Amino acid sequence: MEQSQYKRLLDCAAGRIPADTVFTNCQVIHVFTGEIRRENVAIIDEYIAGIGDYEGREIIDLGGRYLCPGFIDGHIHIESSMLTPVQFAAAVLPHGTTGVVCDPHEIANVCGMRGVKYMLSHHTPLEIYAMAPSCVPATHMETSGAVFDAANIGELLDHPRVLGLAEMMNFPGTIAGLQDVNEKILKAINKGVLIDGHAPGLSGLPLQAYLAAGISSDHECTSLEEAMEKIRHGMAVFIRQGSTARNLEALMPLLSSSAARHCLLVTDDRHADDLIRQGHMDYILRQAVKLGANPITALQMVTLNPAKHFGLERVGAIAPGYKANMVALEDLNNFIVNQVFCSGQAVALQGELLHPLPRENFETLHPAIKASVEVDAERVDFSIPATEQKTIKIIKCTDGQIVTEQLNLSPKVSNNEFVADVDRDIVKIAVIERHHGTQATGLGFVKGIGLKNGAMASTVAHDSHNLIVVGTSDAAMQQAVMAIVDMQGGLAVADDAQILAKLALPVAGLMSGENAEKVCLALENLMEAIKKVGTSQNNPFMMLSFLALPVIPELKITDKGLVDVSKFQLVDL
Amino acid sequence: MEQSQYKRLLDCAAGRIPADTVFTNCQVIHVFTGEIRRENVAIIDEYIAGIGDYEGREIIDLGGRYLCPGFIDGHIHIESSMLTPVQFAAAVLPHGTTGVVCDPHEIANVCGMRGVKYMLSHHTPLEIYAMAPSCVPATHMETSGAVFDAANIGELLDHPRVLGLAEMMNFPGTIAGLQDVNEKILKAINKGVLIDGHAPGLSGLPLQAYLAAGISSDHECTSLEEAMEKIRHGMAVFIRQGSTARNLEALMPLLSSSAARHCLLVTDDRHADDLIRQGHMDYILRQAVKLGANPITALQMVTLNPAKHFGLERVGAIAPGYKANMVALEDLNNFIVNQVFCSGQAVALQGELLHPLPRENFETLHPAIKASVEVDAERVDFSIPATEQKTIKIIKCTDGQIVTEQLNLSPKVSNNEFVADVDRDIVKIAVIERHHGTQATGLGFVKGIGLKNGAMASTVAHDSHNLIVVGTSDAAMQQAVMAIVDMQGGLAVADDAQILAKLALPVAGLMSGENAEKVCLALENLMEAIKKVGTSQNNPFMMLSFLALPVIPELKITDKGLVDVSKFQLVDL
Repeated sequence: MEQSQYKRLLDCAAGRIPADTVFTNCQVIHVFTGEIRRENVAIIDEYIAGIGDYEGREIIDLGGRYLCPGFIDGHIHIESSMLTPVQFAAAVLPHGTTGVVCDPHEIANVCGMRGVKYMLSHHTPLEIYAMAPSCVPATHMETSGAVFDAANIGELLDHPRVLGLAEMMNFPGTIAGLQDVNEKILKAINKGVLIDGHAPGLSGLPLQAYLAAGISSDHECTSLEEAMEKIRHGMAVFIRQGSTARNLEALMPLLSSSAARHCLLVTDDRHADDLIRQGHMDYILRQAVKLGANPITALQMVTLNPAKHFGLERVGAIAPGYKANMVALEDLNNFIVNQVFCSGQAVALQGELLHPLPRENFETLHPAIKASVEVDAERVDFSIPATEQKTIKIIKCTDGQIVTEQLNLSPKVSNNEFVADVDRDIVKIAVIERHHGTQATGLGFVKGIGLKNGAMASTVAHDSHNLIVVGTSDAAMQQAVMAIVDMQGGLAVADDAQILAKLALPVAGLMSGENAEKVCLALENLMEAIKKVGTSQNNPFMMLSFLALPVIPELKITDKGLVDVSKFQLVDL
Repeated sequence: MEQSQYKRLLDCAAGRIPADTVFTNCQVIHVFTGEIRRENVAIIDEYIAGIGDYEGREIIDLGGRYLCPGFIDGHIHIESSMLTPVQFAAAVLPHGTTGVVCDPHEIANVCGMRGVKYMLSHHTPLEIYAMAPSCVPATHMETSGAVFDAANIGELLDHPRVLGLAEMMNFPGTIAGLQDVNEKILKAINKGVLIDGHAPGLSGLPLQAYLAAGISSDHECTSLEEAMEKIRHGMAVFIRQGSTARNLEALMPLLSSSAARHCLLVTDDRHADDLIRQGHMDYILRQAVKLGANPITALQMVTLNPAKHFGLERVGAIAPGYKANMVALEDLNNFIVNQVFCSGQAVALQGELLHPLPRENFETLHPAIKASVEVDAERVDFSIPATEQKTIKIIKCTDGQIVTEQLNLSPKVSNNEFVADVDRDIVKIAVIERHHGTQATGLGFVKGIGLKNGAMASTVAHDSHNLIVVGTSDAAMQQAVMAIVDMQGGLAVADDAQILAKLALPVAGLMSGENAEKVCLALENLMEAIKKVGTSQNNPFMMLSFLALPVIPELKITDKGLVDVSKFQLVDL
C-alpha cells in the first residue's frame, strides 16, 4: 500500500476527512461475531474506512437492507461455464460474487502456461485468484496439449495471483510417493503455500498419508462421516454444490457443527445456463438456508472462511481496512442480491451490471489459444475394420452419471467394418488428438446415448480436451468434426445431412467469448437439436465430456484408444 | 522440507515403514472438531505421521491419558520472567508449553537489535517466535539503550522466526498517523505480516482507525463489551491472564460465544515465581475451566487458534504432517501435565525436564548484553537542593496498581535539601540513565511504598529499563545502586548499613541466567528483606518497575525527570 493511500484511509477512519461514500440505513452482517447491527459504513478509495457515524461526500441509503461481504467461490474451474473470465465475471458479479479461486486446469491441458496466464490476465471487478494446476495431463493414457512439471509449478507459484497448488487429483500417486508428484508437492511446501486436495472417499491410513503430504483441503466429500474424518485430521472441507456434483444436502450437518469454521461452500463446476437461471454463490446460500442452515453460518462459508483459508488479505468481512467488496441483500432466506459493490464501486443493481466490462480483444489472442484445434477433418479415418472377434468392448453410459460400465457385445458388421447399431442404441465414438496435429484417433462404441441418426461432437472432453465425437455414421461424424474445426472448437450436432446446431468455443476450444445469455441460448438450441437426432438424455454433452476421462471407472476412451480404468491401461476393442 | 524426510513421513503415514514411536492407550483431543477419540498416534522423525493403527519400533502406553497438542502462548515478554530464553524454556516445557510468540521489547530497549537476536538465538525444544518490537523507546521523554526505526523493523521482519510487528503500543500515534509510526506499519503491511495491537479501552472511530491501520489483535481488553467491539471489527482478542494483568474472568463469556474462534489465551507477563508455583498455560486452562469453560474450547485457544492466527505451519493440532509437539494430560479439569513431547521427543515427565537444556555460555555473550549498566555509582548525585516552593509534586502509588496519582505536598527540608519524610511515607526516587554513561538522573519523591529505612534499586524499569532506586537516605540509595552496578543489573534491597538481599540480572539487566527455582528463591529473599526495611506492599519491585513508564497515568519519572502523563510532557518538581 502506498503511504498516501494509507494516510487517506487512516484519516477517513479517524473521521478527519469525509468518506467518499457512506452507506446508511443498512443492517451490517458481522461475520466475525455473527451479529447483525444497524450501522453506517464509510468507504474511502477502495477500502472500508470504518463502521460508525461518518460524514461522506455521497450517502447511499440501502433501504434497510442487509449489507454483507462479497461472496467468494473457493474452488471453481471457470472453463466449466464455457465463459471467458471476463464473461464469467459479468455473469457472477450481479449475483454477489466478488472473488473466486479458480483451478484453470482445463485450459492448462490445452494451452499450458500460456492458457493459465490468459485466465489471470483480465482486470475485472471480480478478483480472480488461481491455484497452479497439479495434474496436467491427468494420466499418461491420453495426449494433452501441455505437460506441467515441477518447474512449471514453481514458475506459477511466483505469480502474484496464484495462491498454491491446485487439487492434487493424483491421490494414489501422492500416497505412493511418485517422484514427479513429490517434486510438485515439495515446491508448494517449501514455498509455504496451500495445496488443495481431491480425494473422493479416501479414509484410514491412505488419508493420513495424503494429509501428511501437506494437502490442506478436499471438495469431494459425499458423506458426513467422510467429511468429519477429513476435518478431524486437518483438512478444510469445501462443501460442493455446483452444476455437476451436489453434496450440500449430505453435508448439511457440518453447518450446525463446531467444525463449521473449517468449511467452505464451493461450486467446482458451474455451467452458464445454471448461472443465468439459478445464480452462483447466492444460489448455494439459498439452498443451504432452505435445507435448514443458519444464514450467518452459510454466509461465513462464502466470505470469512474462504478468505481465512486462502490467506486472502483484507477481504471476506465488513471491517475497517478491508476491501469494500460488499453485497446488499433483500433478505436472508432467498438471498436476493440488490446491489453489489467492488472496491467501493457499485458494479451491479438488481441483477444487472451497471457498467459493461472491458471488451476482450480476440484479435490479439495468441494463436495457441484461439487456434487450438489442429485436426484435418477430411483426413480423419473413422473406419473400424472388422475382425474375427465374437464380441467387442462397448462403453455403457447412463444418463446423469459420469461412471460407465464395460459391456461385451457382438459387433454389427457392414462392408467388412464394425459399425453403429442404432437398434441396440450403439453408436461409434472417436477421440481425435487436436493439440499437435497427429490425427491420432481412438475409436470404439458406446451404448446408452440414444442417438437415432446423426452425430454430436465437442472439444470439451476432460481432461485433455481432445475432439470427441459420437455418431450413427462416419459421414455424420465427419460433418460434425468439420463444423468443430471450422469454429476452432465448440459443440456441434448434425443429422445425416447437415449441422443442426452449434456453439463456437474458440478460446482454447473451451470458452465462448460471448456473454452468458448467448451461450445459454446456444446451449438451448443444441439441446433442441439433440432431441431431433433422437437422444432423450438430459445433457448428453456433459456425459460426452466425461467419456474421455480415464480416472473415472470403468471403460473410457482417449485419443490413444480404449482405457480399462480399473486396470489403468489401454486395451483393445 | 528435504525430499528424503518428506518421503519417510509419507512412507510412515501410509504404513509402508514402521513409525519411530507409536503412542497407544490414549484419548486424542482433536482440536479441529472438538472430538476426543481413543486412537493411536504414530511419530516419525519430528512429525506426527498419522492417527490410526500403526506399527512402531517403540510403543509408548499413555495409560489412558488425554493427548493434546503442545500449548502456545501467543503473547509474552519472556524478560518478565527474569529468565533467559533457555531457562524460561526449562521452566515452561514441563508445564506443556511447546511454543511462544514473544515480544522482546524489554531487551530491545536495552540492547537494540543485538538483544532481539539474542532472544532468538537459542535452540531449545521450546519453539520461540518473536514479533519485531514496534515502540523502542516507548516515548521521547526517556533515554533508552536503543532506538528502533522502520529500517530496523524491516531487517527484523526478514528474520525467519519473526512473525510480524509487535504490539503497537503507540495507538494515539497510529491513529494520528505520525510519520515514524506509519513507516513501521507500512513495513509490515507491505510484507504481508501481522501487526499485534495494544489499545486498552479503545472504541468507536479511534478504534476503527487503529483497525484500518491493519492492527490485527489486542490483548488489553478488560470487558466483554470492549472485546466484542474489537472482534466484531476484525481483531483477534488475546485474553490475558498473566502475572501482572488478569482479564480472564471478565472475558469468560467469549469462551462460550461463536467468537471463540477469534480468541487466544495469553500471559503477556509471567514471573518466575508464578511459573514455578502455578504454571504457565496449564494454569490458565485450569483457571478457565474453573470459571466454567468447556475444556476443549479453552484448549483450542492455546493450540489451534494461536497457530492459525500467527500462520504457524504444522503446529497446534494432532494431525498428520504436524510437528509432534504434544502433551499427555491426566485430566481436563486440573490440566495436570504428565508428559511433554517436542518434535516427537519426550522432554518432560511429571513436572521435570528429562534432559538438561544446553548451557548458555555467558563468557561469549556480547558486552552490550552482559555489561549493560554504565553508571558510576559513586558519582551519582542524589541531592535535591531546596527551593522556595511551598509544595512539590509527589508520585502517589498504591499497592497492586500501576497507575499513580500526583500529589502536591509541602516538602521536608534538611540542610538546604529536599529530603525523604518517612513519617509521611515519602521517599526519594531516582532514575539513572544506564545505557550511555551520561549519569543523567531524574529525581523526585514517591509516597506509598512504605519504606522505613533503606533503599530498593532495580534495572527492571519499563520501558527503557534505566536504573531506578527509592530510598529513605541518599547513602542507602547509593549503596543499593553500587550493588546493582557490581552485579551489572538486578534487584537489591539495602538498609542504612548494608545490602540485605539482591538478585543479579546480568543479562541486559533484565534476566538472571540462573534457573527459575534459584530466581524464585532470590525473589523470596528480596521480599523478606523488603519487609525488614518496612514496606508492607505485596510486590514493591513490580510497582517500581512501572514508575518509570510514562504512558501510564498520572505522574511518572524517567532519567529526564518527572513526567505528567496526561500532558505527555516533562515537568518540574
